[in-house]
Amino acid sequence: MIRDVLVRDVGPRDGIQSLPLPAVALDVKQRLVEGLAAAGLARIEAGSFVSPRAVPQMADSAALFERPLDSSVEALVVNERGAKAAADAGAQVLVGVVAVSDAFSHRNVGQSTAEAIAELERIASVARDRAIPVTVDLATAFGCAYTGRVSPADVARVAAAVAEFGVEEITLADTIGAAAPNDITDVVEVVRDRVGGDIAVGLHLHDTRGLGLANVCAGLDAGVRRFDASVGGLGGCPFSPGATGNICTEDVVHLLEAMGFGTGVDLDALLAVSAALEADLGITLPSHLLRAGPRFRAARPTPADGTGAPSR
Amino acid sequence: MIRDVLVRDVGPRDGIQSLPLPAVALDVKQRLVEGLAAAGLARIEAGSFVSPRAVPQMADSAALFERPLDSSVEALVVNERGAKAAADAGAQVLVGVVAVSDAFSHRNVGQSTAEAIAELERIASVARDRAIPVTVDLATAFGCAYTGRVSPADVARVAAAVAEFGVEEITLADTIGAAAPNDITDVVEVVRDRVGGDIAVGLHLHDTRGLGLANVCAGLDAGVRRFDASVGGLGGCPFSPGATGNICTEDVVHLLEAMGFGTGVDLDALLAVSAALEADLGITLPSHLLRAGPRFRAARPTPADGTGAPSR
Repeated sequence: MIRDVLVRDVGPRDGIQSLPLPAVALDVKQRLVEGLAAAGLARIEAGSFVSPRAVPQMADSAALFERPLDSSVEALVVNERGAKAAADAGAQVLVGVVAVSDAFSHRNVGQSTAEAIAELERIASVARDRAIPVTVDLATAFGCAYTGRVSPADVARVAAAVAEFGVEEITLADTIGAAAPNDITDVVEVVRDRVGGDIAVGLHLHDTRGLGLANVCAGLDAGVRRFDASVGGLGGCPFSPGATGNICTEDVVHLLEAMGFGTGVDLDALLAVSAALEADLGITLPSHLLRAGPRFRAARPTPADGTGAPSR
Repeated sequence: MIRDVLVRDVGPRDGIQSLPLPAVALDVKQRLVEGLAAAGLARIEAGSFVSPRAVPQMADSAALFERPLDSSVEALVVNERGAKAAADAGAQVLVGVVAVSDAFSHRNVGQSTAEAIAELERIASVARDRAIPVTVDLATAFGCAYTGRVSPADVARVAAAVAEFGVEEITLADTIGAAAPNDITDVVEVVRDRVGGDIAVGLHLHDTRGLGLANVCAGLDAGVRRFDASVGGLGGCPFSPGATGNICTEDVVHLLEAMGFGTGVDLDALLAVSAALEADLGITLPSHLLRAGPRFRAARPTPADGTGAPSR
């Protein structure tokens, strides 16, 4: 299959982390990661290497990196120790996070933005030693729950600082789901102008205000070809009040294929993974596709004449 | 307030009609229509004049046109008798519906597309006699639950037939929520090329597959400046299985204002109307804005340092 656009599924880490305790069983997470890989998701954020006291849901992450898969199986880390543990476990990519908003950074990782950038340098150094790529997500790139608007110039400044460490990718995250499509256009352009063409800019979007897929389209128009999404739409951001809702992987894949972009993803297989996850977790996920199905798919019988209750 | 884009709220008719019986009380509908008008919705589809046996929810529609409002209060009709009743009741615009898909037309109004076009000619004649504008919605303009894809050429052919009757507006309806943004671009262009610049093309979109607001953006890019939406996202289409979900008025207004388009709508007043409707109906509406609130609005206290459960 041709892959014009890359979708990274963050459900097993970002999504599962957002669920209330008790932690999801390891075998459920393993089935999820393997199902996503089999469905053609080329990159999967499978777990994190952070304090098990702070995030008990991810305490068993190492086990998710044991079995080799065709996909790139990636680990979120927030410090040098986590980076080493992730590399030891077999993570194929280290995912670092730096929040542009200082207030959010403190709440998120107990550090200022400057401290998080310094920490990222140490993470990047571990990645270089182990010959693993590091990818960096910039949180609150389109707004912060505590400080409101975030200036594109500040996003570009943090992106430029991060780019110093040999990072190949930067992902702009709409932590509170505040971006409108014109913001996507603006921030992507400002960041690209600042970091240059060697660093690929991706997007991590939330559907908090219904704009998730509109923002994907704005990203596509701006030339972005890499998007985060979460299977079933699982997850959100517990520290950004009201900021529920990663965009849903199957909804994104359906959109991309409808627009003529190849994703390399088998949509039916992905929907089966999402449905199995609903069954495993015992919850209804905010996936549109799980409810409505792919467009133009269902063969419905020719209906009888109606009695005149008009719709459109 | 400057109004760059016109949003027609179809909640009181399209939305309320979709609710199960018993019918919503007249005073709830009156409060809704008056609340929407007070919030600045310049056009409101308030009721319909169709068989009360087929649509008992709309049997008391005439009462909704009694009190004069600043907004244009509009009535859906499907035949000459309904058109006369609507005009008698004081409807300021008659809304006709023609389905491009013959199979859907039969199910929807018990007529073929050709018969519905002929019926529309009689409706337009009544409108001319009474000096009321008639606006026409083309159902299944982006796909049909029974026959699948609908060709843009067929949409243009029906639009051209309708245009013969002195119609000033045509609204393309995505009945099953199957349109992707590129379809919006294509169909709007093909229809415009066919009917010419004198007829304003609008969009009636559903969020069935999460693409509602992405399709609004595609419409804006194509120069469309009139969109239907339903307060709270109430309603859908009972004859298109799986096709739940009018796009939500407050979500659309929030998007438009974020993009810099004036709507003439007071978003806070609209949110209060939507919240009151939830209370009146005792249901949770699929509005994103009611849950998340407008972006950059909430003043939240500066948070304490976190313990390291990272989000982005």
